[in-house]
Amino acid sequence: MKVTIKDIAREANLSLSAVSRVLNNKPCRVSEEKKELIRSIAKKYNYTANQIARSLVTKKTNTFGLILPDIENIFFSSFAKRLEANCRQHGYALIITNTDDKYAEDLEMIDLLLARDVDGLFLIVSTESYQYVKPMMERLSKLSIPYVMVDRVYPEFDCNKVFFNHETGAYLAVRHLIEHGHQRIGCIANKLSSQSRDYRLDGYMKAMQEYGCEIRDEYIVEGDYRIHSGYHAAEQLLATDISAFFVCNDMMTLGVFRKLYEGGYSIPEDYSIVSYDNTIAPFLSDIKLTSIEQNITELGNTAFEVLFAQVGNEELPVKEICLLPKLIENETVQSLKA
Amino acid sequence: MKVTIKDIAREANLSLSAVSRVLNNKPCRVSEEKKELIRSIAKKYNYTANQIARSLVTKKTNTFGLILPDIENIFFSSFAKRLEANCRQHGYALIITNTDDKYAEDLEMIDLLLARDVDGLFLIVSTESYQYVKPMMERLSKLSIPYVMVDRVYPEFDCNKVFFNHETGAYLAVRHLIEHGHQRIGCIANKLSSQSRDYRLDGYMKAMQEYGCEIRDEYIVEGDYRIHSGYHAAEQLLATDISAFFVCNDMMTLGVFRKLYEGGYSIPEDYSIVSYDNTIAPFLSDIKLTSIEQNITELGNTAFEVLFAQVGNEELPVKEICLLPKLIENETVQSLKA
Repeated sequence: MKVTIKDIAREANLSLSAVSRVLNNKPCRVSEEKKELIRSIAKKYNYTANQIARSLVTKKTNTFGLILPDIENIFFSSFAKRLEANCRQHGYALIITNTDDKYAEDLEMIDLLLARDVDGLFLIVSTESYQYVKPMMERLSKLSIPYVMVDRVYPEFDCNKVFFNHETGAYLAVRHLIEHGHQRIGCIANKLSSQSRDYRLDGYMKAMQEYGCEIRDEYIVEGDYRIHSGYHAAEQLLATDISAFFVCNDMMTLGVFRKLYEGGYSIPEDYSIVSYDNTIAPFLSDIKLTSIEQNITELGNTAFEVLFAQVGNEELPVKEICLLPKLIENETVQSLKA
Repeated sequence: MKVTIKDIAREANLSLSAVSRVLNNKPCRVSEEKKELIRSIAKKYNYTANQIARSLVTKKTNTFGLILPDIENIFFSSFAKRLEANCRQHGYALIITNTDDKYAEDLEMIDLLLARDVDGLFLIVSTESYQYVKPMMERLSKLSIPYVMVDRVYPEFDCNKVFFNHETGAYLAVRHLIEHGHQRIGCIANKLSSQSRDYRLDGYMKAMQEYGCEIRDEYIVEGDYRIHSGYHAAEQLLATDISAFFVCNDMMTLGVFRKLYEGGYSIPEDYSIVSYDNTIAPFLSDIKLTSIEQNITELGNTAFEVLFAQVGNEELPVKEICLLPKLIENETVQSLKA
């Protein structure tokens, strides 16, 4: 049975508002003795100051909401952990929900978190939502609380955004291969996916063109960012004349590794690889992978700062912050130069 | 500006209770025309049926809370994902919070979720809480909603529990090594940690004793379940005469791999390994790891069923369900038998 503030007021023989003010640490003309009485009754019944009822009055809950597409993906779960540390440091709690990368769940979780009266929202939208940009933009623009789109953003939408420049990251990866003498470079990319992902393919194209490398159709193979698709894409690319892979995320690189391992190929002697994300180093004992790093701590810090500044300051102009990824040079690229 | 049900009632020129009943899909004597009017006004202002205010009346939110110690750990994030799928299937939303494996946060997150009026709680307590079993038990026993302790449980506490039998899992691992002719087996375990973890060491001891293998002090090395501790523990064990490792979790096994790789050792030719968790197979391209599997889907399904049955049925006796782990035989154990 839940004890309410009414029950406590009855037992203490005091007014509802007096009990409420005492339990909420608000100034009130109640003697210290009676305050103690109220607190001891509350304690006896293990009364949890009902932040919900309170939030209906104060309109502030010191809670942020985070919507994630896939909690099992290391990139997202690491981000959640960094963000949560930031929230805690600033006296905020973080409520996390998972959408399974589904658009319908994006909408549902927005509603859920609004109904829980969060003070602000961090939103990593589903890949699927890129097919519904218009209704999603409409929904978001009507939100009554501040929010930040993180990592996956809609280029045409004007709101708080914190994300990485994927084109630059991919460009750095491919240029690194070219500078080591590679010309025939395969690319495993998610052509069919969200715009934010496409940028990695753009970066590949840009570097290849800039350095006059031939871009053959067969060099660009579709992958869905999961391990298996990397495996199958590698199978296709092994039938071409490439000397190096640019793989648009680490999960697919794991699939490429498996395929190369099964085929008896050595890295980087037979094939060079540059990957993207730099999240799997701890899992690789024998390979030191060259990869593009997106600094997740920086993403967490920046997203928090943007939202935190907006709470209670809703007149602030929206912020769009594009973070730059970095090439982490390791041992999976062989120089073909003499 | 948030629109309230009052604003809608005013604009529709209808009573508060009528508007409330219509927006909550409750039966009421309002014409279809007026119902439509109410809905269109609500839509116009993007009114989110405030589940919080509603929950103060119905006392039901169709939301469960989950408290996790470390969202970055694959075992926990996979569990969260499975659990969330179960919740969704049954019309429940799941709110996730992360405690960073800290006891103070266990308490804080319990309060947070209670204040958000969840209908029930899934709780994976912090390792630290094993030093505060008494106050924690006291706190939990006063909860006014049903809850389930998952994975990490207090043996002496009578409440809903779903967990794996760690002793059996470890026993299966070590027996497997012994049956393949190994007698000098090293164990990397978390001796200093929670009771639930200690059970894995117990299983090692039991199998070694049962088969008459000598248990030397130097065979048992402390590890904290993180990669680095596996690396350093392997260093110590390489100085002994062991032929096989039993490692109490997959993360530490990654550290063992790295140490063996650096030392130029082959698996299983030089050293056999049985690990625990079976979560890292996707990350290993060249090693097919023998490991103890804890079926996370089963854990998620069972935990959900237990809590779901209790909601609205709080007279049900508590359930304690112990799941059995399974040996997944792969290629990291060499037979020493002729």
